[in-house]
Amino acid sequence: MLDRLRHIQQKKETAVCVGLDPDPERLPTPLRDGRLLTDAVREFCATIIEATAPYAAAYKPNFAFFEALGPAGLTVLDQVTAALPDDCLLIADAKRGDIGHSARFYAQSVYENMGFDACTVSPYLGRDSVTPFLEHEDTCTFVLARTSNDGAADFQGSCTCDGTPLYRHIAQQVAEWSTDATGTAGLVVGATAPEALAEIRRDAPTLPFLVPGVGAQGGDPSAVMDAAATDDGLVLVNSSRSILYASEEHDYADAAAQAARSLRDALNGR
Amino acid sequence: MLDRLRHIQQKKETAVCVGLDPDPERLPTPLRDGRLLTDAVREFCATIIEATAPYAAAYKPNFAFFEALGPAGLTVLDQVTAALPDDCLLIADAKRGDIGHSARFYAQSVYENMGFDACTVSPYLGRDSVTPFLEHEDTCTFVLARTSNDGAADFQGSCTCDGTPLYRHIAQQVAEWSTDATGTAGLVVGATAPEALAEIRRDAPTLPFLVPGVGAQGGDPSAVMDAAATDDGLVLVNSSRSILYASEEHDYADAAAQAARSLRDALNGR
Repeated sequence: MLDRLRHIQQKKETAVCVGLDPDPERLPTPLRDGRLLTDAVREFCATIIEATAPYAAAYKPNFAFFEALGPAGLTVLDQVTAALPDDCLLIADAKRGDIGHSARFYAQSVYENMGFDACTVSPYLGRDSVTPFLEHEDTCTFVLARTSNDGAADFQGSCTCDGTPLYRHIAQQVAEWSTDATGTAGLVVGATAPEALAEIRRDAPTLPFLVPGVGAQGGDPSAVMDAAATDDGLVLVNSSRSILYASEEHDYADAAAQAARSLRDALNGR
Repeated sequence: MLDRLRHIQQKKETAVCVGLDPDPERLPTPLRDGRLLTDAVREFCATIIEATAPYAAAYKPNFAFFEALGPAGLTVLDQVTAALPDDCLLIADAKRGDIGHSARFYAQSVYENMGFDACTVSPYLGRDSVTPFLEHEDTCTFVLARTSNDGAADFQGSCTCDGTPLYRHIAQQVAEWSTDATGTAGLVVGATAPEALAEIRRDAPTLPFLVPGVGAQGGDPSAVMDAAATDDGLVLVNSSRSILYASEEHDYADAAAQAARSLRDALNGR
């Protein structure tokens, strides 16, 4: 999976991941015309994908927004992901985390049934909650290390293991678990804490990073690349709201394309 | 929600929660007759619920098993939960955990759309990942503190915050967040670590506990009640596999009823 991601990034010259977080209250005006909400969300996502595809190495639907539409929301998610171009990675932002017996079913669901290339996973339940995901070939499992939200300080930053902050301890453990895994392991590290990005890159030199928190959350794109992108350490930088809702009017597709292109350029140092 | 749970437990004299983890490979023989898997899972859950209802204060479907059936699995989940008797609590074992903006959609999904009374939530992302659940009236949000699996030792047990183990720090924080919450907060504490149960009960004297890990995972029912059940501190003890798969033959309903009754009696000190 690392080779595929590297190939996509080199070919398209982009580290952008577009987060698909379709909030019904922020859908563009032209889609608020009385049609079914599921139809509006489907068209919104399809339009955003088509507009941003030249600038995106990956798409990351956040399951919260699709699940909130009920069972029909998962059908929409299936339709949205089926329409994605081949030259991008498809990441399930599901943040699942359960004991091993249940984790196997979550992994089967996202990787086998739904056909995602990658998935986000929460590490709180420890090794047996993560390894069932790592057993799937040609996938990349991004484990939450240091997230981009305010609450990240509550436990990730304030707790330590033998003097090491929890988020670094998790990164080190995931790096260890990844050595004998069938699939690829990666880490989620927020753009809002660039010093943590640099630390975790030292702890896990070859693990790919999925970096949320630029755009609406305030992280700086070039600081992310300086801190974390190396020859061996790939980085995907996610932006959701600042691309999806760049305009809520008829020009929303063009505005999204422009926001994605600007982020690509900022990440490429232009 | 606490009053309702107390009323149910007193009326039915039981602390049993039946976990609904329908594993396709363990469905009883009579349901393996060529019918659709979703139909088999629906009938299996309905039969288990009918058989165990006299002994159960709560049911806890684990979303992993329903999601693994695809979009149709969520329709099955809706049908299963709609058929539950009124005198039990309905707990979504979803272990969701995302930044505040996304957490609101997860909370809406389980509490408003799907009508669950309670939900399990992972604390790794901190306060803003939990409080959107606590804003829902007449609900109980069980936050993972000390889980019942082997991996619980990896981070929950080995990390500390100012000398306090992570699982206790989380329990203390949740107790604090619960004081100004609209909904009720609770904690998930595994039966496999009775000393942690007692510690966390001291940290959170009035929070209800959802206790997995008896049965297949080896926790002792009476040790759980001794450590955690008090006049102010309600306890629900979950068992999934040892009830669901008490028999895989034609007598599976009777066997499940007997397993649930035995657990009820063990928890009641009989």
